[in-house]
Amino acid sequence: VTDLTSRSRPAHPPAQTDARRARPVVPGRRRRGLGIGELLLDEGFWGRRQATNAAATLQHCYDWMDRLGWLANFDRVAAGSTGGTRPGWQFSDSEVYKLLEALAWESGRSGDPELESMWEALVERIAAAQDEDGYLNTCYGHSHQPGRYTDLSSGHELYCYGHLFQAAVARLRCHGYDLLTEVARRAADHVCEVFGPDGRAGICGHPEIEMGLAELGRVLGEPRYTEQARLFLDRRGHGSLPPIPLLAPAYFQDDVPVRHAHVLRGHAVRALYLAAGAVDVAVDTGDRELLSAVEEQWATTVERRTYITGGMGSRHQEEGFGDDWELPPDRAYCETCAGIGSVMLSWRLQLATDDVRYADLIERTLFNVVAASPRSDGRAFFYANPLHQREPGTEVLPDAVNPRAEGGVRAPWFDVSCCPTNVARTLATWQTYAATVEEAGEQVLLTLAQYATGDLHIVTDRGRVVTLRVETAYPDDGHVRVMVLDVPSTVQLSLRLRVPHWAAGATLAAPDGQPYPVEPGWATVPGVLTAGEAVDLEIPMSPRLTGADPRVDAVRGTVAVERGPLVLCLESVDLPDGASLEQVRLLTTHVPAPTGDGALAQVRLERRPDPAPGTVPFHPVDPTATDPGGQASERAEDPTVAAVPLVPYHRWAERGPSTMRIFLPVT
Amino acid sequence: VTDLTSRSRPAHPPAQTDARRARPVVPGRRRRGLGIGELLLDEGFWGRRQATNAAATLQHCYDWMDRLGWLANFDRVAAGSTGGTRPGWQFSDSEVYKLLEALAWESGRSGDPELESMWEALVERIAAAQDEDGYLNTCYGHSHQPGRYTDLSSGHELYCYGHLFQAAVARLRCHGYDLLTEVARRAADHVCEVFGPDGRAGICGHPEIEMGLAELGRVLGEPRYTEQARLFLDRRGHGSLPPIPLLAPAYFQDDVPVRHAHVLRGHAVRALYLAAGAVDVAVDTGDRELLSAVEEQWATTVERRTYITGGMGSRHQEEGFGDDWELPPDRAYCETCAGIGSVMLSWRLQLATDDVRYADLIERTLFNVVAASPRSDGRAFFYANPLHQREPGTEVLPDAVNPRAEGGVRAPWFDVSCCPTNVARTLATWQTYAATVEEAGEQVLLTLAQYATGDLHIVTDRGRVVTLRVETAYPDDGHVRVMVLDVPSTVQLSLRLRVPHWAAGATLAAPDGQPYPVEPGWATVPGVLTAGEAVDLEIPMSPRLTGADPRVDAVRGTVAVERGPLVLCLESVDLPDGASLEQVRLLTTHVPAPTGDGALAQVRLERRPDPAPGTVPFHPVDPTATDPGGQASERAEDPTVAAVPLVPYHRWAERGPSTMRIFLPVT
Repeated sequence: VTDLTSRSRPAHPPAQTDARRARPVVPGRRRRGLGIGELLLDEGFWGRRQATNAAATLQHCYDWMDRLGWLANFDRVAAGSTGGTRPGWQFSDSEVYKLLEALAWESGRSGDPELESMWEALVERIAAAQDEDGYLNTCYGHSHQPGRYTDLSSGHELYCYGHLFQAAVARLRCHGYDLLTEVARRAADHVCEVFGPDGRAGICGHPEIEMGLAELGRVLGEPRYTEQARLFLDRRGHGSLPPIPLLAPAYFQDDVPVRHAHVLRGHAVRALYLAAGAVDVAVDTGDRELLSAVEEQWATTVERRTYITGGMGSRHQEEGFGDDWELPPDRAYCETCAGIGSVMLSWRLQLATDDVRYADLIERTLFNVVAASPRSDGRAFFYANPLHQREPGTEVLPDAVNPRAEGGVRAPWFDVSCCPTNVARTLATWQTYAATVEEAGEQVLLTLAQYATGDLHIVTDRGRVVTLRVETAYPDDGHVRVMVLDVPSTVQLSLRLRVPHWAAGATLAAPDGQPYPVEPGWATVPGVLTAGEAVDLEIPMSPRLTGADPRVDAVRGTVAVERGPLVLCLESVDLPDGASLEQVRLLTTHVPAPTGDGALAQVRLERRPDPAPGTVPFHPVDPTATDPGGQASERAEDPTVAAVPLVPYHRWAERGPSTMRIFLPVT
Repeated sequence: VTDLTSRSRPAHPPAQTDARRARPVVPGRRRRGLGIGELLLDEGFWGRRQATNAAATLQHCYDWMDRLGWLANFDRVAAGSTGGTRPGWQFSDSEVYKLLEALAWESGRSGDPELESMWEALVERIAAAQDEDGYLNTCYGHSHQPGRYTDLSSGHELYCYGHLFQAAVARLRCHGYDLLTEVARRAADHVCEVFGPDGRAGICGHPEIEMGLAELGRVLGEPRYTEQARLFLDRRGHGSLPPIPLLAPAYFQDDVPVRHAHVLRGHAVRALYLAAGAVDVAVDTGDRELLSAVEEQWATTVERRTYITGGMGSRHQEEGFGDDWELPPDRAYCETCAGIGSVMLSWRLQLATDDVRYADLIERTLFNVVAASPRSDGRAFFYANPLHQREPGTEVLPDAVNPRAEGGVRAPWFDVSCCPTNVARTLATWQTYAATVEEAGEQVLLTLAQYATGDLHIVTDRGRVVTLRVETAYPDDGHVRVMVLDVPSTVQLSLRLRVPHWAAGATLAAPDGQPYPVEPGWATVPGVLTAGEAVDLEIPMSPRLTGADPRVDAVRGTVAVERGPLVLCLESVDLPDGASLEQVRLLTTHVPAPTGDGALAQVRLERRPDPAPGTVPFHPVDPTATDPGGQASERAEDPTVAAVPLVPYHRWAERGPSTMRIFLPVT
């Protein structure tokens, strides 16, 4: 038996350290995601964001955590000088680990020496804070601190390890074994020792370690870690976590075991991380029942508890999922991290099942939640992503730590600052979601799932490199050209392209000929592709009107406008002088016309009398009126018609405080 | 100078201890509310509830607090044995005081010896826990407890005194000076000492002491207490309270001084209690600016932030007010205590201004929030009062302490159990809201503001007794008869009756003749009334359709049905077998017909296809459709028409778990 707690070089070195093929999720199946270096993005929607992330956001996150003392927390543990007031919440270590993960991916792709230095300096400080037995946390377990694992419900110690493991996995895959691998192994061994089959039957209030352990087990070939992840999963759902006042066990998914649940519920990020970890375990252990359970939960959650933006979690209270159909646009919480958790879950399911619906939701969420969070300079972020802003956000001071931004204004940093580093690691790994690769001998099936301009260098299992180029102005334009530049002579290359579920009327032109209609789903390019050939996919991008299932009561009598994968919105700064969003009624007889990346809509601006003073805002309805529920029309005075621009939701609030709505009342 | 800290009999005895005229709010103006013994209720809507409160709820509250150790907390302080785990939240003392207040009013009216014994036993235990210097709290300030006033933001010590003072005031007015008066005086003197003009400039995170001090000052003729209330008010709004993590200063109204605010915001109960205390101070100090500020806040809050039920506080998060027009029916928090706070505020404003709008809102709130909370047996309560229940509530165990009931099922007790005792003291004092009395010499103007069957014995300042009887089946029926039984020969009696703001077409028949139309507002009966005369008010009670201001986005395309002062709702238990609330569309061409205390509505039941699997619940809209926003109609299959009963909202969920909605989508 290998001595797993040994501090020597690992018994199982990582399977590969080709940084090009490095990626966060490696289930060890035939179908794999793209490596973060297999696609080099040009300037474009995602290329620009990834470059800003590398150039600005990583340093921004480092600076804030340095300034707030979250980094120095590690030094105090190392120096044995804990005690007094510790800066940051009990889970602030995880922020450092998420930054590390983002750094590992970005420097793995670019080799940027500044990012390398930042990595090394951070890892030294973290390693110095690890206890002899592998325990690592700056909030618990040392002098003048609460004891280790004394508050599993809220302490987040295991949660922090999960992020540590994901950072270590990133580095291992991009770079190879280093000091953080060592730290992560020791911590994982410690966790297996304390919480293993013969140890304490505890779980963490915030799921995350399941994913971390599963992936660390994969990269190190260490089944004990996978088994520990499975243990944590199976222990959950039996009400064993000590209650947090005023919170029900569903808050941290301790109400029903994962394999018996039918829908996601409770705190959205927790629910999504847990489900993602469950897919990892299900895939690694061949547990089809568990996988099916998560597939069902995903489907029900998407059909009934997910916003048009892909946002999840409709309740500010508990940052949680609401009941079915409870999707208020104004009080939508839609935490950025829940959007990221949704992408993580959908991605694992896409890899496991090849179902195009997962890629569809990933696209919706990336464009309308993840892309909405960072400001264009990468130095301020949305925490919550409401679909309707009634009051203009208050300007934040550039140097302020915000309590928890609930929409309106992007803020540089938060008290609970989970989102910025989560955005950073997600943007750094955007490539992995762009395509899947399946190989059988020299047969290579490339499936493009997300579109961006750039150069593809697919490195096959046998080390061959297939080179393609994708050119597109997506999502501003729906034309996607895929050019095959180089295919090694032994390789047989096939290609599939995703036709989004909303893209009625798409056409595909294969190398040999004329465009022909393709249905939403995976569109397979016929035959085997050779160098010099090109494929053209044309996705209709005209603005379209979208209504809600009538059970989504909160947006009855309204429609949204979408354009391609983008949800559009109307901001008050785009209204004629003196008009307010409350007056706007969309004229649906005129389908909005495309303009730039948005659309131009015809609206009626209605003035209406002030409410009756001192009475509740509910008034008698005339039952003989033709439209008694259509409050819009009956008291209007002097309606005027105007054309107003709708802009992509992801870039709202970039022109100062404004009010905003996605769902527009119709006339 | 009187020694205000003396433990001897008071320097200023209470102005009067005629239990009949006793009432919670005595601003010392010409216009006064009815005393709790001046109207003896027959069986009827409020009489039944008041009787149940006396017979069941008071004992129920006592038993729960006894069982949970909230009473014994006082004994431990008295015995010097504090330490270890203290049962209850830090504010649990206030629950005991609210029960005391309810006991004082109820036993003051009935003289019930069991209630008297309960009072005396409780007061003994409380008095024994008071420190030598007047400090009284079972959570702070003793051995192994946090120090006094170390957490003004969350500690609730001053809040608890406020409720103590209100209980002492009730007893003083109903009964006269007793041990609790002593306790309250010593506590109030201690507060003035510690937080007075030369003391610590602190305020309490939860307003309440302002009302308590003002009223204790009124009953004891002690201006120092009024001045202390004014001090607390003026200190507030300058951001001086240490922040609670993740909460903004608006949560406890420390963002803007009361006299400069324009609308209620933050935690609803806090906001309402603070505003009520501000009216007390404004009236006692002749501060017209402050009174006007609160009047404006009330009006704006009612016009934009108040539900059709009168419920206030649309957010579960922070139990707080939302933005203007943010009134979701499903996630309406509408805490029972906020409804009570709203009645307390409106009542003070009605007394101060004679404006009928305040009485209108009191009626709306009493019938649709306060009456909704207690189960018919008075032993279970709603904490939150949503207007739409999507999932049937889970049955509660009769012996369970519930975390915080958010709708669906009434629960016997809560972890944070503010509502049951608050309901108890409100029902015990229902009479005071029923009428105002104004006297000038022997001229007596009686204004009936709320209607219930019972005997009125108005005791004038000069000790004369005017006897009337009110007979009505209100709110089941709109006929109110007021019979003058006895008027002392020297008294000149005038009468006004409230015509509710929704009561178009009301008629009044004065003693001398035929019914004639009266407009909403105060309807004055012409002339002076003499014994043997009767007045008949006829208020139309046909069901009526009510729509929302179009800015209340969450209920667009729906209407509610009201009948008299009652908001009606549709419960799933009243639907035909197999039908669900999601299918219901109200046929507004048929105005619902009255039945019992509810109505019978014609609805269409629509079946619709299941959502598309694995996609978000938003679908393409055909812009050429006649009603593109009316999602209701476009995908309906096999509509059937049915007649369904609508029941008063206040008694929903009495027939087991159900789903419910007030606002019904229209066809």
